[in-house]
Amino acid sequence: MSRFATLADHTRYGAAKMEKSNVFESERMFCDLYCLEPGQAQKPHAHAASDKVYVVMTGEVRVSVGGEERVLGPGGAAWAAPGEAHGLQNASGARATVLVFMTPKP
Amino acid sequence: MSRFATLADHTRYGAAKMEKSNVFESERMFCDLYCLEPGQAQKPHAHAASDKVYVVMTGEVRVSVGGEERVLGPGGAAWAAPGEAHGLQNASGARATVLVFMTPKP
Repeated sequence: MSRFATLADHTRYGAAKMEKSNVFESERMFCDLYCLEPGQAQKPHAHAASDKVYVVMTGEVRVSVGGEERVLGPGGAAWAAPGEAHGLQNASGARATVLVFMTPKP
Repeated sequence: MSRFATLADHTRYGAAKMEKSNVFESERMFCDLYCLEPGQAQKPHAHAASDKVYVVMTGEVRVSVGGEERVLGPGGAAWAAPGEAHGLQNASGARATVLVFMTPKP
């Protein structure tokens, strides 16, 4: 795996569902780019022992963490601690990309 | 600490040196925003047991990892594995911001 990456190279959309593209990965963490067409979502879920951070790179995404919900644009970020339900949905009319960090890997 | 953040709220520059603003932090990781005036830098250094990821949000930054160097613009990313020397410098004429993830905390 290269030590350098460009998020544009990881930007790809799927008609069926939100696309995940892995950017970096080690034994301890992963860094993904999520690409969401309008209407696509990641259903709320929780990880017992991992932190997850979302950072919206482009577009607008509705993010929920621990029952709280916000619409985030570029530079908007959210953190789900272990055990906290979290999910996101592109409720806008345009494509969106979200950088995702998770540690440790579930 | 809030579960939501806006990187714009963490963007602050210092005349003396690169500014670091913590966005999220847990026992396992931290997520910072680095803000660099032209010429400011983080000197190359290494962490024995931690991964660090840099993602350029705005501007242009020269990033070195393990002896390899690249100039990265917005969406450019780099990963330093444990033991790998890494650093960055704003060699451009404009301000720059870089999102930083580290796990585990050193």
